[in-house]
Amino acid sequence: MSLSLADVRQAATRIQPYVHRTPILTNSSFNQKVGAEVFLKCENFQKVGAFKFRGASNAVWSLSDEEAARGVATHSSGNHAQALALAAHMRGVAAYIVMPNNAPQVKKNAVAAYGGQITFCEPTLEARENALERIRRATGASVIHPYNDERVIAGQGTAALELLEDRPDLDAIIAPVGGGGLISGTALAATEIKRGIRVIAAEPQMADDAYRSMQAGEIVPSLNPKTVADGLLTSLGSLTFPIIQERVERVITVREESILEAMRFIWERAKIVVEPSAATALAALWEKKADLEESRVGVILSGGNVDLDKLPWQV
Amino acid sequence: MSLSLADVRQAATRIQPYVHRTPILTNSSFNQKVGAEVFLKCENFQKVGAFKFRGASNAVWSLSDEEAARGVATHSSGNHAQALALAAHMRGVAAYIVMPNNAPQVKKNAVAAYGGQITFCEPTLEARENALERIRRATGASVIHPYNDERVIAGQGTAALELLEDRPDLDAIIAPVGGGGLISGTALAATEIKRGIRVIAAEPQMADDAYRSMQAGEIVPSLNPKTVADGLLTSLGSLTFPIIQERVERVITVREESILEAMRFIWERAKIVVEPSAATALAALWEKKADLEESRVGVILSGGNVDLDKLPWQV
Repeated sequence: MSLSLADVRQAATRIQPYVHRTPILTNSSFNQKVGAEVFLKCENFQKVGAFKFRGASNAVWSLSDEEAARGVATHSSGNHAQALALAAHMRGVAAYIVMPNNAPQVKKNAVAAYGGQITFCEPTLEARENALERIRRATGASVIHPYNDERVIAGQGTAALELLEDRPDLDAIIAPVGGGGLISGTALAATEIKRGIRVIAAEPQMADDAYRSMQAGEIVPSLNPKTVADGLLTSLGSLTFPIIQERVERVITVREESILEAMRFIWERAKIVVEPSAATALAALWEKKADLEESRVGVILSGGNVDLDKLPWQV
Repeated sequence: MSLSLADVRQAATRIQPYVHRTPILTNSSFNQKVGAEVFLKCENFQKVGAFKFRGASNAVWSLSDEEAARGVATHSSGNHAQALALAAHMRGVAAYIVMPNNAPQVKKNAVAAYGGQITFCEPTLEARENALERIRRATGASVIHPYNDERVIAGQGTAALELLEDRPDLDAIIAPVGGGGLISGTALAATEIKRGIRVIAAEPQMADDAYRSMQAGEIVPSLNPKTVADGLLTSLGSLTFPIIQERVERVITVREESILEAMRFIWERAKIVVEPSAATALAALWEKKADLEESRVGVILSGGNVDLDKLPWQV
């Protein structure tokens, strides 16, 4: 692997003018409940409401002026699309976003509000990739993958960098795993900064491809995952998996009801809005599966984008 | 008035070991929406989820050991009851809480969870006062009024003290007004610390007794108020009103729909859970009634206690 802590530090310097240094909150009720001292790194307070803005910003600001002038492109209907649109907007360049035509209106609106230029396509992977390739050829835009991109991984690692600057005494860090951009950046930064720190990935049982990949020693694709944590549906990437294999202690899988219970508990007690993907990391503590009692644990709350008209505990 | 900034400073020192120094958040979307630079003092992150814990703590820790040993008492079904129960618990003394027997189960549970000893009574003011008086006679407990008490007012003022320590450049501070404990403490602290700072009270149009009291020059009681901001139903007190008259520039009344719009906007964009009473202060900016465009404005987000099963925008 060519990526190292130096890349994460460089990313931190590069994106510092554009991203929020998010606060770290604590909550004594949650600590009591899970039996650990927990430090919540609030990436739900990040711009666009998710850590994704770190990686997208690092990718956008890594481009030369000439490259940047041709714009950036991706296919995504989630937080990465909004993050890339805003990062490009802040650099004053175009962002071409391919979205399936059945994406929720609220997500289309959000991307458009950040100035993203949306191309709709049929909701299949093939259609998305074809549309993206057509845009790339026509515009010369740089394609920025949501996670399987070194610039993105290094950018996501800056959250853990800040967390350990503020709390150097942590014993462990937990982050959710979907495609692996956040957990690989986190693991890279944390294990280089602090020898012996435990880095743990949290994943829904109903989308346990990272767990199975670790068991198998090779990437096992995510097939028809069904979980409330809709940010964690994707499969690992060829760049993220080796870092995870090398630096992540284990993948903990959690039940759907634990995700919802932990999510609701944090809303009620810590008074913050977190999305199910973020609550997946909390659920690893909630289920007490990680041998973290009595430890100081950082949790990266990945985001806070939810539909307030359809809260997952209101069926 | 005998109360002064010195009392607020003393309160701050007294309660410092027990209360959270709450963070100040900013949100660029909200700033853009209201045309001001807004600093959100997050008392929704305070213990028990509301600023009330400051005043209750100051009252409890102002007692002599002998007084404290006899316990404290109040009648309340809201945040003050929880705050007093926890403050007493932290001092290791009894809290006797009189609640109407029709109080929501969730509030009864919360007070009980903090160790409060609940006495139920009929839901009339007379029944509550009689029950409280019986308890006082039987136990010798100190009665701590939710707002018409100098120790409580001084304690509530500590939020503004912290806010101005962190942001000495503020032009104005907005806080909601119910009984007036928070706004009078805020006004006392802010106008003494910074000559010329504007202190503005925000109140629901549907419960506009503070506005009418300011017009009339005397306390006008709150009669059958009907507002989503259920923390702002009470009338001003004999101790809070004179401070408000002297130090609060004006009372801004806001529409119910502004409260809900501002509340939802802050949940969605700032990712924090605030209750309608807190959103009332945001609504004063939302309606742009306060001549605060281009100003630096501190807003005291009074609390974040809501029923997540019944959000007010889901009717």
